[in-house]
Amino acid sequence: MYLSVSSRLRTLLLCSLLLLGGCATMRPDALPSWSEGPAKQAVIDFVQKTTDTSSPQFVPVDQRIATFDQDGTLWVEQPLYAQVMFALDRVKDVVRAKPALANEEPFKTVISGDRAAMAKLTERDLFTIIAASEAGLNIEQYQEVVRNWLATAKHPKFQRPYTDLTYAPMQDAMKYLRANGYRTYIVTGGGQEFVRAYAETVYGIPPEQVVGTMFKINYEIRDSKPAMIHAPELFFNDDKEGKPVGINMVIGRRPQAAFGNSDGDQQMLEWATGGSGARLGMIVLHDDAVREYAYGPAAGLPDSHVGTFTQALYDQAKQKGWIVISMKRDWKRIFAFEP
Amino acid sequence: MYLSVSSRLRTLLLCSLLLLGGCATMRPDALPSWSEGPAKQAVIDFVQKTTDTSSPQFVPVDQRIATFDQDGTLWVEQPLYAQVMFALDRVKDVVRAKPALANEEPFKTVISGDRAAMAKLTERDLFTIIAASEAGLNIEQYQEVVRNWLATAKHPKFQRPYTDLTYAPMQDAMKYLRANGYRTYIVTGGGQEFVRAYAETVYGIPPEQVVGTMFKINYEIRDSKPAMIHAPELFFNDDKEGKPVGINMVIGRRPQAAFGNSDGDQQMLEWATGGSGARLGMIVLHDDAVREYAYGPAAGLPDSHVGTFTQALYDQAKQKGWIVISMKRDWKRIFAFEP
Repeated sequence: MYLSVSSRLRTLLLCSLLLLGGCATMRPDALPSWSEGPAKQAVIDFVQKTTDTSSPQFVPVDQRIATFDQDGTLWVEQPLYAQVMFALDRVKDVVRAKPALANEEPFKTVISGDRAAMAKLTERDLFTIIAASEAGLNIEQYQEVVRNWLATAKHPKFQRPYTDLTYAPMQDAMKYLRANGYRTYIVTGGGQEFVRAYAETVYGIPPEQVVGTMFKINYEIRDSKPAMIHAPELFFNDDKEGKPVGINMVIGRRPQAAFGNSDGDQQMLEWATGGSGARLGMIVLHDDAVREYAYGPAAGLPDSHVGTFTQALYDQAKQKGWIVISMKRDWKRIFAFEP
Repeated sequence: MYLSVSSRLRTLLLCSLLLLGGCATMRPDALPSWSEGPAKQAVIDFVQKTTDTSSPQFVPVDQRIATFDQDGTLWVEQPLYAQVMFALDRVKDVVRAKPALANEEPFKTVISGDRAAMAKLTERDLFTIIAASEAGLNIEQYQEVVRNWLATAKHPKFQRPYTDLTYAPMQDAMKYLRANGYRTYIVTGGGQEFVRAYAETVYGIPPEQVVGTMFKINYEIRDSKPAMIHAPELFFNDDKEGKPVGINMVIGRRPQAAFGNSDGDQQMLEWATGGSGARLGMIVLHDDAVREYAYGPAAGLPDSHVGTFTQALYDQAKQKGWIVISMKRDWKRIFAFEP
């Protein structure tokens, strides 16, 4: 009797263990920061149908390319792009190195600290400030200057380093894609060298997988050593029509998936999703004023010069089957530091 | 006795097998097309000291980048670069599509077939012909046109397809480097899209690892589909000072090793070998008139406009410790089709 009970118990225990084992072989949630819903499901469906060898939409591993815009897609872009913040902060160093600039615009205005005047700086002014933030430095020096700034600068709203302000759901998506043989590229309107300074640490994306706006870099012999020196001249604008062109320059393949958040990403999404087979286009809609920011003007949100997302893009997304990600509804948590 | 002999025999056989086993664990020659000598040894030494974790010159796998010029380094460049041959052959198609060009130079001269007049075409003329060979095609069409040409065109001296004329020792070196964690990139003065059309099949090098001269490519919507269209305008010249700049654009890392054969590769070799730790710079000297071509003028060989290798570069190589590869002495066989 004792043995019999014991044997029954053992069987029961074994079954339970097997059941647990069954549970353990189920994959853990690959996208834990996403709420359940169509956006999360679209990512999972896309990965499944392009990586299952029996799927008619199977994509060989060398063609698994996913491209991500950075500002507003992978991290916070409001109230101003991090690179603009960096360049504004760097004006004092630029002027220290070249004191004559103190009396020249737009540097004079930035040094004055007059916020009303600064708010009136034109795009051309900002470009001049960004170009000056790089000029004359060699590529290694510039990366060090960017890293030093990132180590100390704080975002005005969140009072945290900018590198804390990456979106956890996008980090999930990039890891999930990489775990399934996708190579993840950043394709940004921001500076290629600026983003390369932190992309590997912050996103796990190596320098050869960063496509961005390029300033002229000159090869020179300095102190009898070869050096690559930043010049204050635009070489390639990796925005709008420039994004597919930049993708072709650096990757030479059409992406299977593309993620963006603004009008600057429209052509990249068109190009990626315009190919045959399974394609994924996703656009982040910033509709969460509590946890992040709300701007649009898609879906009646206030307009923004930073990360403009027009109604036309919203309509195109609907028409083309691109998934509009509602930060409010589709993202369970936005930042890794949230409880 | 019988048993005893049998047992001795068995021991002997076992020992022989073990010895054979010992031989089998020794690596086969990784560079079978190279003659024994300092050039072959330099490649082996470089790989060993940069991949042995106990070496002070160990290089982490993500930094293992080797860059190769193409024309004259990976395949034959005489009597004219393959891309120039292609563009000349394509003139008739270009003129068929746009008949007005038949009366315009340099197309008129090419169509005339007058070899004396063709020999006088300037670099600017050749550029016009190359630009016209791409213009108006989308990137997929252009790659198909290049592949079709490669499938039928024959080299005037060897009477074989150009793709047969890659150097077996360089194919060995690329495979050996890749087997040791290196990523091999082509960095060519030739057209990026031209080389991408065959680099994967011919060298095992995927499109994202081809850096080359870039013509302007425009993103457009054609017949309501996104398209990338070649324009007849130079965007980036990946030669001389351009090579380190192109490397930075596409790779964003300084190579550990670089292989070239002409003055156009000087800056790439300077940049690659100017870094710290173990570095490898190699230059192919075409000194084998019997098996390939002989030109220089380094080492007293006749001068050439195609793949110019000046005495100044030769002197710099000696001074910087770059290895000059003598095709005659250092390469056991030049082409895979040799017996």
